Amino acid sequence: MTHYYYKCFDCDSEFPAEKIEDNQIYLCPECGESKKNTPLKGVLLIKYDTDFIKQNISRSGLLGKRIGRFWEYPYLWPLKINKGKFSKISESVYNKLILLEDPLLTNNYKGIEVDFWDETRNPTYSFKDRASSLVAIKAIELGVNEIAAASTGNAGSSLAGICSRLGLKSKLIVPKNIPREKLNQIMAYGAETFLVDGDYDQAYDLCLELSEKYNWLNRNTAYNPLTIEGKKSAAIDMFIRYKGKLPDFIVVPVGDGVIISGIYKGFSDLLQLGWIEKIPMLIAVQAEGSNALVRYLETDQFKFESANTIADSICAGAPRNLYMASKAVKETNGFPIGVKDEDILIAQKEFAQNYGVLAEPAAAASFAGLKLGLDKGLIDKNWKGLLLITGTGLKDSASIKKWINEITPKSEEKIKRSLLNI
Amino acid sequence: MTHYYYKCFDCDSEFPAEKIEDNQIYLCPECGESKKNTPLKGVLLIKYDTDFIKQNISRSGLLGKRIGRFWEYPYLWPLKINKGKFSKISESVYNKLILLEDPLLTNNYKGIEVDFWDETRNPTYSFKDRASSLVAIKAIELGVNEIAAASTGNAGSSLAGICSRLGLKSKLIVPKNIPREKLNQIMAYGAETFLVDGDYDQAYDLCLELSEKYNWLNRNTAYNPLTIEGKKSAAIDMFIRYKGKLPDFIVVPVGDGVIISGIYKGFSDLLQLGWIEKIPMLIAVQAEGSNALVRYLETDQFKFESANTIADSICAGAPRNLYMASKAVKETNGFPIGVKDEDILIAQKEFAQNYGVLAEPAAAASFAGLKLGLDKGLIDKNWKGLLLITGTGLKDSASIKKWINEITPKSEEKIKRSLLNI
Repeated sequence: MTHYYYKCFDCDSEFPAEKIEDNQIYLCPECGESKKNTPLKGVLLIKYDTDFIKQNISRSGLLGKRIGRFWEYPYLWPLKINKGKFSKISESVYNKLILLEDPLLTNNYKGIEVDFWDETRNPTYSFKDRASSLVAIKAIELGVNEIAAASTGNAGSSLAGICSRLGLKSKLIVPKNIPREKLNQIMAYGAETFLVDGDYDQAYDLCLELSEKYNWLNRNTAYNPLTIEGKKSAAIDMFIRYKGKLPDFIVVPVGDGVIISGIYKGFSDLLQLGWIEKIPMLIAVQAEGSNALVRYLETDQFKFESANTIADSICAGAPRNLYMASKAVKETNGFPIGVKDEDILIAQKEFAQNYGVLAEPAAAASFAGLKLGLDKGLIDKNWKGLLLITGTGLKDSASIKKWINEITPKSEEKIKRSLLNI
Repeated sequence: MTHYYYKCFDCDSEFPAEKIEDNQIYLCPECGESKKNTPLKGVLLIKYDTDFIKQNISRSGLLGKRIGRFWEYPYLWPLKINKGKFSKISESVYNKLILLEDPLLTNNYKGIEVDFWDETRNPTYSFKDRASSLVAIKAIELGVNEIAAASTGNAGSSLAGICSRLGLKSKLIVPKNIPREKLNQIMAYGAETFLVDGDYDQAYDLCLELSEKYNWLNRNTAYNPLTIEGKKSAAIDMFIRYKGKLPDFIVVPVGDGVIISGIYKGFSDLLQLGWIEKIPMLIAVQAEGSNALVRYLETDQFKFESANTIADSICAGAPRNLYMASKAVKETNGFPIGVKDEDILIAQKEFAQNYGVLAEPAAAASFAGLKLGLDKGLIDKNWKGLLLITGTGLKDSASIKKWINEITPKSEEKIKRSLLNI
């Protein structure tokens, strides 16, 4: 008996954990479907025995936990529990996975309280380490040594880095338009890397095919339910960091929709446990050139449009987790908002110059979304907010070069004279 | 009355804190000298009233402190104390400076216990945040709004980022050979950046001249004694992390010699307090093409040779803090070791692929030094060691490209066939 089971997001069918995990099933056996240029159908959610959780940990017990080490309270995760510890997995593994322990930067913008949640200082410098860590722990638990994923960047470098830390092998299927710095990082960690002469969609499908054939554990985002569950850890960490008093709204950059789904899932679990009264309003920011969720929430219909934005990490024509992301926004009385690429770059500059936080464009989109939400009157100035910063600008120097000044070497004399003229 | 004073490393003259700080004095007023292509003379050290420290904090009290927040025990730092808190400085400032709270990655190499100390996940992704933070706090204390530094990269991006976080202005004088990614980062944070048509030495001297003229606080490494004192925080953090039981040796990459001096200073303070019995052996790693300390320890003489190595962060023909670094090595029964650039690149690859840590070449030098030290029999296999990882490989993609494979996009068919052939 395990303390959790799997439930289909779409058809509500329920499955015991063993059936799903032992057979390496990912999507719902009843209705699951992965089709090109289409959101996934039958994404599985993990449901817990809340009595079991409460027998093992209390609200105040959880609030006393350390951030960035979700495995220290295993009852909230789809992992085997052995006398309060995970089986098979040693402390030395966890030591290598510790996320940033205080991602909260208290800040304000034009007098409004808006904190930043900095995920750029995780082990491989992005939010994706949350999902990779949980998937990797599960792989060790299952005795699987090889994990594969399709990725446009951060998820891939995260999986590669986490696998390298734990002595697992990673296989990355990446599209040819992957930003070079992220490809470098993936290859640096020693992942077996397959650069597909095609787009992310092709890489995604090829990865599913190869994973099945070669028995690799698959970490494709949304497809593997543990990617959602791993990202849920951010919500739990926020609960701990805010001592249970959550902000009014959280701005989340949305591409495939898995981060926002994971955060929603975490708060939903807390709500179900009766440990919070309300989930913060989730504001989904998308680039205007990649706004499938914005359009879906307006029209209640998905229509594929190829995506194009400078914010590569949220560039997704067919968000794999569209339906769950949509629910996350609606159920929390949030809203979606589309921002222009030029406003993302301005936000990136302001993040760096006014707050000392170097964000990649997708991460800076959260700030652009805040500003537009305020301008449009969608965000009340009395609310308290949190902006999610999902990846570092160090991985995207091309975007930074678009707004820093040109600079050429000058003689000492010229420098001295330039200062006199000020 | 303050609980600390300044003492010249070379001539032993002592000065009250007020005399040095209120007059913005940096080098020893008696013997201090900054000359081109020469190590600094008259670097000042900060000495504490150990009774005062012991009245305010005990050994076990210090061991109970959190890592990465040195300001939480002000007695060990050259800062004003006001009822146990710093004056003038608010909690919200400190919140923006928190360093990585668990930099220790327990590891081993060929069966030997060698932990890694990961400083790449600090606020601006390098060790230099330790020095920049202390200097910036001091600037706020003194009511100074502008801080200047000469830098080849990490110190500059650190100062720029920390200043941006705290609402201070930074002025960076950088040489024309600065790696582009680090220049981007400096400019991204909004530093006023002066690119000198010259080398680091020229930038260093120009920065001194301009700082004096325009009344900027100067953060040139070693020149400002707080750079050494800030870096000392790593030693205190190690003491806390290891619960007082320090490893036998610590491998430190050495350029200007300020990091190793700071670590030595921290352990010396602990030794003087009677809180440790022995300082770990400090092993100074240099690139063969920039080995002034190696040569100085062999010959007891400094001779300038222009430096050249792929590890830009430890490239220094005239290490500013040569004499203090030399003492750190000698007094701890350590040794200096020079490693080849190609071995640094191999170490960088192994760090990433075997341990999932992306280090820049200067940081990877510590691993190369360990390997060479073992090969030469200078390091005993029964010793326990610590490798300092000072900066992230994300800031130096050129070095990574030297050892990852070339990769070109392939069709799905070709990828499938390539897998069959394995």
